[in-house]
Amino acid sequence: MVVDTSTVSPARSRALGAKLAEKGVHFLDAPCTGSKPGAEGGTLTFMVGGDEAVLERVRPYFEPFGKRIYYCGGAGLGLHAKLTQNLILSNLLQAFNEGLVLSTKAGVDPELMLDILNNSAARSAMIAFKAPFIFARDFRTNFSVKWMHKDVGVALESGGQLQVPLPLTAIAHQMFQAAVSSGLADEDFSSAIKVLEAWAGVEVKSRQPVVGS
Amino acid sequence: MVVDTSTVSPARSRALGAKLAEKGVHFLDAPCTGSKPGAEGGTLTFMVGGDEAVLERVRPYFEPFGKRIYYCGGAGLGLHAKLTQNLILSNLLQAFNEGLVLSTKAGVDPELMLDILNNSAARSAMIAFKAPFIFARDFRTNFSVKWMHKDVGVALESGGQLQVPLPLTAIAHQMFQAAVSSGLADEDFSSAIKVLEAWAGVEVKSRQPVVGS
Amino acid sequence: MVVDTSTVSPARSRALGAKLAEKGVHFLDAPCTGSKPGAEGGTLTFMVGGDEAVLERVRPYFEPFGKRIYYCGGAGLGLHAKLTQNLILSNLLQAFNEGLVLSTKAGVDPELMLDILNNSAARSAMIAFKAPFIFARDFRTNFSVKWMHKDVGVALESGGQLQVPLPLTAIAHQMFQAAVSSGLADEDFSSAIKVLEAWAGVEVKSRQPVVGS
Amino acid sequence: MVVDTSTVSPARSRALGAKLAEKGVHFLDAPCTGSKPGAEGGTLTFMVGGDEAVLERVRPYFEPFGKRIYYCGGAGLGLHAKLTQNLILSNLLQAFNEGLVLSTKAGVDPELMLDILNNSAARSAMIAFKAPFIFARDFRTNFSVKWMHKDVGVALESGGQLQVPLPLTAIAHQMFQAAVSSGLADEDFSSAIKVLEAWAGVEVKSRQPVVGS
Repeated sequence: MVVDTSTVSPARSRALGAKLAEKGVHFLDAPCTGSKPGAEGGTLTFMVGGDEAVLERVRPYFEPFGKRIYYCGGAGLGLHAKLTQNLILSNLLQAFNEGLVLSTKAGVDPELMLDILNNSAARSAMIAFKAPFIFARDFRTNFSVKWMHKDVGVALESGGQLQVPLPLTAIAHQMFQAAVSSGLADEDFSSAIKVLEAWAGVEVKSRQPVVGS
Repeated sequence: MVVDTSTVSPARSRALGAKLAEKGVHFLDAPCTGSKPGAEGGTLTFMVGGDEAVLERVRPYFEPFGKRIYYCGGAGLGLHAKLTQNLILSNLLQAFNEGLVLSTKAGVDPELMLDILNNSAARSAMIAFKAPFIFARDFRTNFSVKWMHKDVGVALESGGQLQVPLPLTAIAHQMFQAAVSSGLADEDFSSAIKVLEAWAGVEVKSRQPVVGS
Repeated sequence: MVVDTSTVSPARSRALGAKLAEKGVHFLDAPCTGSKPGAEGGTLTFMVGGDEAVLERVRPYFEPFGKRIYYCGGAGLGLHAKLTQNLILSNLLQAFNEGLVLSTKAGVDPELMLDILNNSAARSAMIAFKAPFIFARDFRTNFSVKWMHKDVGVALESGGQLQVPLPLTAIAHQMFQAAVSSGLADEDFSSAIKVLEAWAGVEVKSRQPVVGS
Repeated sequence: MVVDTSTVSPARSRALGAKLAEKGVHFLDAPCTGSKPGAEGGTLTFMVGGDEAVLERVRPYFEPFGKRIYYCGGAGLGLHAKLTQNLILSNLLQAFNEGLVLSTKAGVDPELMLDILNNSAARSAMIAFKAPFIFARDFRTNFSVKWMHKDVGVALESGGQLQVPLPLTAIAHQMFQAAVSSGLADEDFSSAIKVLEAWAGVEVKSRQPVVGS
């Protein structure tokens, strides 16, 4: 039995599963989320595609790593669930970048803006977590620009195979490409904001000096 | 004294404030969020720009309408905070649309996908609230496509004035334009998903029949 | 009688024409193309909207400035013809920029690439004229980045009024915005290529040294 | 010796060439343009990458098919020249579509608009050729939507490998995707205009009845 936790194209994963099936080997696609903190703390989330009975047999092996294991359906559907999550996160980050660079240049304090967002319909878990690191200009890598760029590329490839146009995501992909091209490939994906900051001539950072730094 | 709660261009609002100041009239820009439920329940959020002392004098008049009143800084900054919020919401909705149309066409159950999102970094207040209405194909209007289209247009105009490129937002604006062009102007802004659904030949809806409907 | 040769919103032009009509003043919208060389050589092209009989009466006054005078239809249609021309030019320039930065980075000689384009379905008058200046890094202004940015903005505004989504043009507009934000506002609009060059780390220029420079 | 005239990824072509070289087989990438009429009339254009001495040996074999044979440089550069040409054509067509749908909806006669374009800096060989077929609503296939969609996808893939962001092209790709999704995959690539026409509620066609049709 093979459980593949990498994020690859659902089509490629299905082809691999079909080859293994010929040899009598069970296969599950089981990409995960949770970034570096999730991996270290055993709180990853797994999205699983393939045969449900096979998942039930291996479920105990997932449990030390993850708190949530979702069965998503047939082969490749774990990957589709994962790609959709990263598709949304990538656009959400770019939207935050555009919004905060604009409001900061206008003169709104970034921390006030975050407080407003966190108490609004626009609040989101990723932004609430990432924004303080951005404001402190701390771009140490949990999930890198180049990996987000790759995952969004895989989502676009799936869009092509399933005939689903993805115009917003196509632009988010190019903005992550611009970040890679600007030398940010290995920084945390939140550092993509620097592309917009360079254009706008403004940095989205705390007005208060950070104690101890 | 004039308190303007409409969402207009910060530049236009400042020009109006300057004219009123010549006549000795105080002016605050004080756009609000909370949609129809917020207006009915007295739980609107106000973002206020202008003279802080003036805000303090009128604060009691806001309180029956809103639970949160943010002072954002000088003239126009209440509007900038509001525009940033809607800029993020508009992109977030379009991202959700692209993600859910893709995963639904792939075969992932929309309600499972939402459950995954709600337990992930991609969870957001707006999506958690709106998605069940989309899945039930209920597009009764809290905030219409045409108003979101207008607000995003104002944000883009501000980007032009402040020299901040907003590529993702420009595409979100065109997708809301496509929704307006498709006859959805007066439906809830969540109905913009129909543009993508028409292309993809799939509807993002509950698999279970809705009881009583 | 008033003949307006500036490039403004058709809606605004119509409103102005209506006001003048109330006072018995005839009005034509008559924007022109031809850039600085056309203005100096009397070879401008005029696109005229309004009453055709009025155009016939003033036609002799156009002739010293322009070789072609097109009657486009009722009020505002001269402007629409002009905006469509600049909409196409702006996208065409950005397309050339993307294509040449890509092929140059890959290792294709820009002058060979231009020779191929000039002998292909992709040949165009504007590119054939502009490319040699770009390759010589001569960005002296015939028509500036900021004016192209403004005209594309007016085209997008018209798209909004006529309910025509313009996704490609919206991105071209943001790329000209990026050029303005990068300090290129007053250079020739062909200098917008520098935004892509900065990302890609390559310059699209002649391999041969330019004699005398 | 192998001469590959298909349009594939330069990276894949180089990998194939390298494998063949191991077996002592010479390899050239030699994609062509000219569409169906070029193939039938022996007027194709070839863009060739690989060893120049090898090209000279096989040049006589190209001549019955093509009038122009460009040597573009090392392995893969014939493909890069071809991809750049199609990248520009794809954006140019989408730009024409946006411009003509906008001006037609405004009320400008498409044939007048084309006449203006053909006498302007925006004139291009492809538009001058294709527009009359569009106006006659004749979408018989010279080069299909699905092939243009594929070629633009290969150009975007190359952009990723060479770290060149291509935002305009990414949107053109999604608009061809929308055309494929709308059932137009096998029509001529000029039929992509129907996506915009459906939104705008207007057809870009001749005002005069076509004789004999």
